[in-house]
Amino acid sequence: MSSTVTFRTATWDDLGRVVELIADDAVAASRTGAYGAAHEAGFAAIEASPNDELVVAELDGQVVGCMQLTFVPGISRNGATRLLVEAVRVDARLRGQGVGRAMMEHAHARGRERGCALAQLTSDKQRPDAHRFYRSLGYAQSHEGFKLAL
Amino acid sequence: MSSTVTFRTATWDDLGRVVELIADDAVAASRTGAYGAAHEAGFAAIEASPNDELVVAELDGQVVGCMQLTFVPGISRNGATRLLVEAVRVDARLRGQGVGRAMMEHAHARGRERGCALAQLTSDKQRPDAHRFYRSLGYAQSHEGFKLAL
Repeated sequence: MSSTVTFRTATWDDLGRVVELIADDAVAASRTGAYGAAHEAGFAAIEASPNDELVVAELDGQVVGCMQLTFVPGISRNGATRLLVEAVRVDARLRGQGVGRAMMEHAHARGRERGCALAQLTSDKQRPDAHRFYRSLGYAQSHEGFKLAL
Repeated sequence: MSSTVTFRTATWDDLGRVVELIADDAVAASRTGAYGAAHEAGFAAIEASPNDELVVAELDGQVVGCMQLTFVPGISRNGATRLLVEAVRVDARLRGQGVGRAMMEHAHARGRERGCALAQLTSDKQRPDAHRFYRSLGYAQSHEGFKLAL
């Protein structure tokens, strides 16, 4: 990767591209849905939240990745604030070139700026490559992740 | 369990008991720390957040459990808001009597009230009993959970 990845908060103009990035994935395609009012409501709720940030990564003026950061205050782990990272995606054409690593480094820097002592995320058991990637960043694969439709 | 478990938002007067509940656990004891300013800062941040709730469970006028609920807006899963459940604890003397199940049912009800389509949580790989409990509630053990100290 000869150019430098830059980061900024997503705007309404990015939302279509963000939905495209999130859906461009074998595991997530069917559950992301086509761009619509539900994504717009989600974006509005993220914008309204003081503890959520939707971040896009740019390379040569193009949006090539996205991720959502949530800062979660807490009592456990000696009152630690947690950085929750969700919906991490890199343009499929650019995988393996360091974009994801640069994104996670940015996520951790933002977490530290917000006083987070801990980063946490879950990754579908169907994504062994992602697990290897997170372990390579120093993450401990210490927990089981559970989901329930409400 | 002959009495009924009731739920309310934790107040400052509950914080000592909440720290005690969180620490009363083989996995969490060392990392919770003794009650102090860090827990108070965490509680103040939860109170200030529109998307976080610290809930206590009461039985016969005593606090017998606690959990933290975080409502996380998002773009993925068709704009779903997620209910994140953290720091679930039941008084050790009352385990196996349905308190935890009542707590999780309350968590899911609060999630639905806030428009959440999905509940998610992680549980340390050292807690097989907890994993069985979450599976018994219908949770899919579909993800790997990763943590990194920042």
